[in-house]
Amino acid sequence: MTNEAERRPGETSITLPDAYDAGLYFIGRIRTPWARRKDCPRNGLQSDETCTIEVDPPFAAALQNVEGATHLIVLYWMDKAARDLVLQQPRHAEGSRGTFSLRSPARPNPVALSVVELRRRDGHRLVVHGLDCLDGTPLLDIKPYFASTDSRPEARVDRADLKAEPQDP
Amino acid sequence: MTNEAERRPGETSITLPDAYDAGLYFIGRIRTPWARRKDCPRNGLQSDETCTIEVDPPFAAALQNVEGATHLIVLYWMDKAARDLVLQQPRHAEGSRGTFSLRSPARPNPVALSVVELRRRDGHRLVVHGLDCLDGTPLLDIKPYFASTDSRPEARVDRADLKAEPQDP
Repeated sequence: MTNEAERRPGETSITLPDAYDAGLYFIGRIRTPWARRKDCPRNGLQSDETCTIEVDPPFAAALQNVEGATHLIVLYWMDKAARDLVLQQPRHAEGSRGTFSLRSPARPNPVALSVVELRRRDGHRLVVHGLDCLDGTPLLDIKPYFASTDSRPEARVDRADLKAEPQDP
Repeated sequence: MTNEAERRPGETSITLPDAYDAGLYFIGRIRTPWARRKDCPRNGLQSDETCTIEVDPPFAAALQNVEGATHLIVLYWMDKAARDLVLQQPRHAEGSRGTFSLRSPARPNPVALSVVELRRRDGHRLVVHGLDCLDGTPLLDIKPYFASTDSRPEARVDRADLKAEPQDP
């Protein structure tokens, strides 16, 4: 599970539990223009590219009514991420930081989420804007985005110790 | 995995794959005032109650710097939810709806997410506002909420076919 390329000085890892507590199904794949991590945009809003969410046929019926939402929350599995890092050394930070204060893929359960704009549905495929992940990333879930509960424009993150782009994940 | 109490007429289930594709660790528990599903608020903003996220000691170091965020995204596991429903019959809807158009706990991968306001941290515990889940719910992940990418106040969900509370998940 560990990608050595992600390790940097100042990082702290733990011994993970011997067994998993629950299991996930990969229910589709995310098709993006980005084949290498260094090609991925810093976040999905920094690119004009659209991506395609391909839902596997057994789960496709669950897409009914999804076009009623202008925006969706997409959960996906960062299958190349380290899971044992509790302190990490971000590229733009002075010191190490706790995993739960970061949006890094490396975390005990590497479930990533992105808020995307739904452009159109073609059968079991959704064309969306706002993803930044590698081509072929396993899909876990799709949820409608409700501004009433999911949008908090007043939210702030104090990253004064970061050297650049303080509000950018 | 199936909770028969959640089944209603008009729902469609599928045969799930024989094996899981990935595994999850439960990294803590969520402490809430609600012991039964019927006691839970419809969403976390409809209650003034605060809840406590208890991170298990092996993962507690990952909380460093988390106080820098005013809001967090909490991922948790809906361990009592059915996983085989692709069409569901919401209480307030005229007909059945696709699972991916709903925020129902029942979904192939029952990973729920809530946006919460961080009130304070006490060691390995976070006191937050905005959760609506049962007491003891397994914790999967904590992420900082970035308004720049996570807040979409313009998002809309067309639920004209719902009888009541059209913008409420």
